Amino acid sequence: MIYKDQTKEVLENELKIEKGIYEGILKENVSIDISRGKPCSEQLDLSNELMSILSTTVLPAGAADVRNYGGLEGLMAMREIFADILGVKPNQVIAGDNSSLKMMYDTVQSCMQFGTLGSTPWNKLDKVKFLCPSPGYDRHFTVASAFGIELVTVPINEFGPVMDIVEALVVSDASIKGIWCVPKYSNPTGVTFSDEVVERLAKMECAADDFRIFWDNAYIVHDLYDEKVTLKNIYNSCVNAETTDRVFMFASTSKITLPGAGVACFAGSEANVADIISRMKFQTIGPNKVNQLAHAQFLKDADGVRALMKKHADIIRPKFQAIINVLEDEFRDSDIASWSNPLGGYFISYNVMTGCAKRVYELCKKAGLVITTVGDTYPYGRDDRDSNIRIAPTCTNTNELDKACQILVCSTKIACLEKIVSENE
Amino acid sequence: MIYKDQTKEVLENELKIEKGIYEGILKENVSIDISRGKPCSEQLDLSNELMSILSTTVLPAGAADVRNYGGLEGLMAMREIFADILGVKPNQVIAGDNSSLKMMYDTVQSCMQFGTLGSTPWNKLDKVKFLCPSPGYDRHFTVASAFGIELVTVPINEFGPVMDIVEALVVSDASIKGIWCVPKYSNPTGVTFSDEVVERLAKMECAADDFRIFWDNAYIVHDLYDEKVTLKNIYNSCVNAETTDRVFMFASTSKITLPGAGVACFAGSEANVADIISRMKFQTIGPNKVNQLAHAQFLKDADGVRALMKKHADIIRPKFQAIINVLEDEFRDSDIASWSNPLGGYFISYNVMTGCAKRVYELCKKAGLVITTVGDTYPYGRDDRDSNIRIAPTCTNTNELDKACQILVCSTKIACLEKIVSENE
Repeated sequence: MIYKDQTKEVLENELKIEKGIYEGILKENVSIDISRGKPCSEQLDLSNELMSILSTTVLPAGAADVRNYGGLEGLMAMREIFADILGVKPNQVIAGDNSSLKMMYDTVQSCMQFGTLGSTPWNKLDKVKFLCPSPGYDRHFTVASAFGIELVTVPINEFGPVMDIVEALVVSDASIKGIWCVPKYSNPTGVTFSDEVVERLAKMECAADDFRIFWDNAYIVHDLYDEKVTLKNIYNSCVNAETTDRVFMFASTSKITLPGAGVACFAGSEANVADIISRMKFQTIGPNKVNQLAHAQFLKDADGVRALMKKHADIIRPKFQAIINVLEDEFRDSDIASWSNPLGGYFISYNVMTGCAKRVYELCKKAGLVITTVGDTYPYGRDDRDSNIRIAPTCTNTNELDKACQILVCSTKIACLEKIVSENE
Repeated sequence: MIYKDQTKEVLENELKIEKGIYEGILKENVSIDISRGKPCSEQLDLSNELMSILSTTVLPAGAADVRNYGGLEGLMAMREIFADILGVKPNQVIAGDNSSLKMMYDTVQSCMQFGTLGSTPWNKLDKVKFLCPSPGYDRHFTVASAFGIELVTVPINEFGPVMDIVEALVVSDASIKGIWCVPKYSNPTGVTFSDEVVERLAKMECAADDFRIFWDNAYIVHDLYDEKVTLKNIYNSCVNAETTDRVFMFASTSKITLPGAGVACFAGSEANVADIISRMKFQTIGPNKVNQLAHAQFLKDADGVRALMKKHADIIRPKFQAIINVLEDEFRDSDIASWSNPLGGYFISYNVMTGCAKRVYELCKKAGLVITTVGDTYPYGRDDRDSNIRIAPTCTNTNELDKACQILVCSTKIACLEKIVSENE
């Protein structure tokens, strides 16, 4: 139904029907959370072998005893797996503990406190700004704003961040020190950056010599379908463009093995790795190498990772499809909602009629469905269009998803109908 | 032998004999490292059950699934164990990943960047100083100096830091923001702070409102003998002195379970914990809770920790005794060396005649024995007396220890004899 073509009577009748459905839902005491990109228990079970794999392992003793102190860069076996996936050399990788977010935070903090590769510490500058392709990942934005970094929203389209805008900003403003990127299966849009976008990010002229791309490859092997999407290797593009030190890369096994107990990594030029290690040596006597060894033995190699990801896809693909099918059925010919149909990653980006997302959120919440706080996908929590809703379907079961879809659809219709009807008065 | 009472001829003859012994050692191609406080493989084997204990565990599912994201404060079961050991309440504890050093670094960095409990960020001050009771732990000193914090050496005696000096400094200088303390079985002296020192640290008047005691209780349960040494609970002293927020406490299972894969903790007032959590929420989605659960199941409770520590003591006590016995035999009635005989911890603090430690280090190194770099136990690596040597006997076997003692004794005699003879010329 194209709402704008309907008479007031039709719309009011529709609204009445939906409110009736909604009243029914309220009586069901629903409690469902589709707000965060969390794997479900069935996915976690795929890695249960991690808990016991070392019980049958003869550990190398002496200096190389993974149980003891040492080894800032992490175990070579894990560095090799990440290097293979990211398309860099193992000595360009630092394998850490469970949180790539912590590695990103520490990297930003280090640039603030010490600068990077000898640049002026960002703390000493009057102003530091980061570009935030949006809608994007809320935790990226809050890392930067925790340091008082000004967040500059740039739009993201089907090819990635809109490069005409990005290039115009970075060439003219030396206070722009970074850009947050989830280049493959972006959170929440599902977009994979095009080759041209990757090339232009590597090549673009930046007023700041120490401009850095924070390249969070959180979903690099997280395909939902056999039809793989290829992401151009930005490190190679940087080497070709002679901007080798521009990109800080991050990844983790959080959504490969276990979110709470995986292995994260930093990767970059050898100079960047040496710079970070030169400071890490004051901070720690090494990451949890026992967990890294368990991971290396469990995953074996990059092919092992890809085989495991197929099993994940088999579990979560139906959940994405269930939601997409409902949205197709309900809103295919509608003018109040549109959505992404991602080939990978953890989210569906759902856009409702301008000015209605917060109301949809409230209605869902009242009915027992928690969705990501509206606005969180934008810097400072401000979605000026009040339109974007992020849906994370993975950590729910089929029954819950059916109910979640019903609530979402009903809430969307009510919110939009209310707005149209009130504007027509 | 009291060297200063001997004739030149006797001394020169002694030196000749020792040099002969040393030449013999050089031919043996020794390679022994007693430089760092590392547990030996036999100690690590005590915790091998950690590698498989979760294989038979039914994990709690849903929101409490330790395998998934969440839980910034760490698992309650581990917070309870640390709380019991440290004498605080579980909600005063944050259980983290494997490195208490990283938690200390992050805490200092957070004070630099953000201040603490609303104080001015230390980065914004002209000068920040930390008191460093010395000889002390080199990695404490390098954490502070990495931030450009000025290190102020204060002496440590058998009761802990010399409090008359500490009090005089902190009351008059608001730029002094912290003091590093290893209050029990200090690294390297083995000293446990007396009740009076703990009380005075809690009570002393500080010019800086945001003065903090960095209380690294690395050896809190690390007794070598049944004869336990008691450390007064500084948090209770702070509560009584109305300086509740003054102390940041740290501990870890690095030398209880596995150095590379243990669980570290921060503990402090509820206000300090809330302050840290309010920033951690931007940094990470929680520590490795799988490892924490394995630890909680393996250790069970504080009594479980103490029982495990007895097994550690049984392994490493003979190593301490072997060295002490040799030093007693060789230098009991000598005027060139003195040493600690610690009741716990990981080190023997060995003092040679003033001006001879670096020479001892060189001689040992040439003979294949690596000891802690002389000076490292003092701020900026400067031991003005050139006297203190830290010995870490745990990660060597008995044969190695015998040889290490022989080299150390011979090198000490040569270095001191050379000095006395040259000064008599």
